[in-house]
Amino acid sequence: MDLKPTKPLSGFIELLPAQQRCVDFCAARMLNVLKTSGFNMLDLPAIERAEVLTDKDNWDEIETQMFLFQKGDTKMGLRYDGTVGLSRYVAGHLNDLVFPFRASQFSKRYRGERAQRGRYREFYQMDMDIMGVNSLSTNYDAEIISVIQRTLDSVSEFIGESAVRVGSRPFWDALFDYLEMTDVQKKDVFVLIDKKDKMGDEDFAEGLQDTLGDTNKENQIKSVFTSGYTAFLNKSGKLDLAISELNDFMKTLELFGVKNAEIDLSIARGLAYYTGLVFEFKLLNHPELGTAAGGGRYADLAGKFSKTKIIGVGAAIGFSRIFVALMESGAIDMTPFEASVDATVLCMGNENLDYAMSVLNALRDANVASLAYLDADKKFKNQIEYADKIKTKFSLIIGETEKQNQLVAVKNMASGEQQSVSLVDAIKIIIGA
Amino acid sequence: MDLKPTKPLSGFIELLPAQQRCVDFCAARMLNVLKTSGFNMLDLPAIERAEVLTDKDNWDEIETQMFLFQKGDTKMGLRYDGTVGLSRYVAGHLNDLVFPFRASQFSKRYRGERAQRGRYREFYQMDMDIMGVNSLSTNYDAEIISVIQRTLDSVSEFIGESAVRVGSRPFWDALFDYLEMTDVQKKDVFVLIDKKDKMGDEDFAEGLQDTLGDTNKENQIKSVFTSGYTAFLNKSGKLDLAISELNDFMKTLELFGVKNAEIDLSIARGLAYYTGLVFEFKLLNHPELGTAAGGGRYADLAGKFSKTKIIGVGAAIGFSRIFVALMESGAIDMTPFEASVDATVLCMGNENLDYAMSVLNALRDANVASLAYLDADKKFKNQIEYADKIKTKFSLIIGETEKQNQLVAVKNMASGEQQSVSLVDAIKIIIGA
Repeated sequence: MDLKPTKPLSGFIELLPAQQRCVDFCAARMLNVLKTSGFNMLDLPAIERAEVLTDKDNWDEIETQMFLFQKGDTKMGLRYDGTVGLSRYVAGHLNDLVFPFRASQFSKRYRGERAQRGRYREFYQMDMDIMGVNSLSTNYDAEIISVIQRTLDSVSEFIGESAVRVGSRPFWDALFDYLEMTDVQKKDVFVLIDKKDKMGDEDFAEGLQDTLGDTNKENQIKSVFTSGYTAFLNKSGKLDLAISELNDFMKTLELFGVKNAEIDLSIARGLAYYTGLVFEFKLLNHPELGTAAGGGRYADLAGKFSKTKIIGVGAAIGFSRIFVALMESGAIDMTPFEASVDATVLCMGNENLDYAMSVLNALRDANVASLAYLDADKKFKNQIEYADKIKTKFSLIIGETEKQNQLVAVKNMASGEQQSVSLVDAIKIIIGA
Repeated sequence: MDLKPTKPLSGFIELLPAQQRCVDFCAARMLNVLKTSGFNMLDLPAIERAEVLTDKDNWDEIETQMFLFQKGDTKMGLRYDGTVGLSRYVAGHLNDLVFPFRASQFSKRYRGERAQRGRYREFYQMDMDIMGVNSLSTNYDAEIISVIQRTLDSVSEFIGESAVRVGSRPFWDALFDYLEMTDVQKKDVFVLIDKKDKMGDEDFAEGLQDTLGDTNKENQIKSVFTSGYTAFLNKSGKLDLAISELNDFMKTLELFGVKNAEIDLSIARGLAYYTGLVFEFKLLNHPELGTAAGGGRYADLAGKFSKTKIIGVGAAIGFSRIFVALMESGAIDMTPFEASVDATVLCMGNENLDYAMSVLNALRDANVASLAYLDADKKFKNQIEYADKIKTKFSLIIGETEKQNQLVAVKNMASGEQQSVSLVDAIKIIIGA
């Protein structure tokens, strides 16, 4: 019989135990920040109705981007982000939730497109959203940014420091109005701005020319990327308002204790959802990773699901993107994650199993991460080799002598030092190490 | 425009924030037991190649039971259990892992079949497996049972006590040989035994008659369900061996400290995988939930993926099955999970935001679960109403006076008592409560 393939499908992440301990450790730290910040953790279905996932009817094209399938008459698919399910959930539970409602999701998302380097088809993001009914202070936008930075800071020993850049949708709207652009031009230019980084300056300039055909307007737009908003002060009331709101916001960020924050009007964050301030985080030590987290404000999150207007601000941290890349590049020291346990009980012969088990249970009751080698008829050599391979800190050797004297032989695997002590003292040695 | 549906697809679980806190709390307790017991947490892809998920070629039928889809030429689908991915993973990483290898998975699984009451199409199970190359002591079977009981005991305040029943595949094999049954009869009778609970005694007896057509043999098989193995002592060497191994195993369970364990030869656990001892846990206070956890020993886990023989013992806890049902039936007191935070900062006016934020940051630095009401221009009445609705334990009211005097007005929401104290004292009051 032919053997089946053992590799996961391309674009799917599969970690070794130590790597998994590393991401679990970091996730726990980060989730603790989110819980301590009063976010309600949500765990929504990974499968949604196709009509929830998209408004578009061109299934053939959508199918190349998503995992879609059909059960009976119902088209459905795997979520590609956390926002689509959140919108549905909040709209469906308006009376069960207290607003402003604070939600966080740490879950797998799926992209059906062909796998590329650094792009996964299954990956984790960590979302946080604050949603209000009809109104929501921009103070919450500042809080979201503050919480993201606290979340990233909680694992700074692994990923270093972060910096945030803040852009403004209203600024561009005001500028487009000031330049008297048509609706089609506005939309097309915004797409160009969003793709500028990928296109490069030359293609961007050409795109602007094709769309606007007005050197003066093109130059004014290009000036934003070199000189920010300075050329647009006192040009229109709408521009001034957008600029002063953005400046006020940067001061609020300071109140929240956010470090390394600056205005960057080139931040666009795609066309969907966002209508207010937008922001992106980078890791200062790892610019090669691109955007580590990003988000912004949306004026009407759940309009497709409810007549109630839900205003919100939300963001996602690219969890897999950050941690899988940093582990793969060797940027994270994996030494602390190599061992699954602190103590390994080696049982020399099944006749000592009763005592070995009482030792193991006592260790576990004391919350010492521990296991036992239970092929008790194996030789000491095999057993200690196993203990060495799993990188346990201590081996607790249980033989006839130990059982008779109710002692344990504790071997420090790093130093090789071994001593016979009582179980209570053994636990003290292990916990104290 | 028509509004889109807000309900999740049928068979998909969607919890409210307090319910999510309850399951997250229980999962964390249980996962801590597994980690402390030296299991390596694995997080494998939810999507596998169709050929990994099944050996069968009747796609139309399989498609009704699974979520299957195609990308390019590749048929794939969502995992229905944790074992199929684990087999592939272990076979693919024989040289990366140390054996006996201990793995645990807490992940979503998917069943494509039509949703029924109490059966979900997306649900969590918590798996644990110990795998050896070529050999593995049955002491590990006892340890798995011990660890499951410790895991369930860690949340006994919510689910009560558990009991385990142990069956034996080798006993049935020996009995079938002793009764000189044909291979076809063996297979058919085993299917009947596995379905006996669902069929009822009458249909079971009829099924036996149809298959065996031998009253003596039928009665001997039926006697197992009333009198256990007693009638089969000293009948054949193979039977005696199976019975003595089972009895020895029950003694080992005692050494491991397992409570409420008994032999029950009616435990069959389906046809797949298992070749040795099998076991099932029930919750003593909740027999209506049926099997809360179950597992057993398999002689060749990864035979489809590798020529290396992997022997293992594994089990799964029906996490969603237990906790969603107990929350829905009202068996779990949700009071401890109602509040998302201990402290809520109420900011009376944007001019006090700077001080309010320093208070909020100090609370979070002290690991106090806390949030702030940041629509600072809202009246006190609105703000305290919000604090009341989210069931925070304390409100910290920040107005002009508090800012000037660098104090906080701490209101105990349960007693209504309010006092103005320093920030340090406020944190002491909250942590001490």
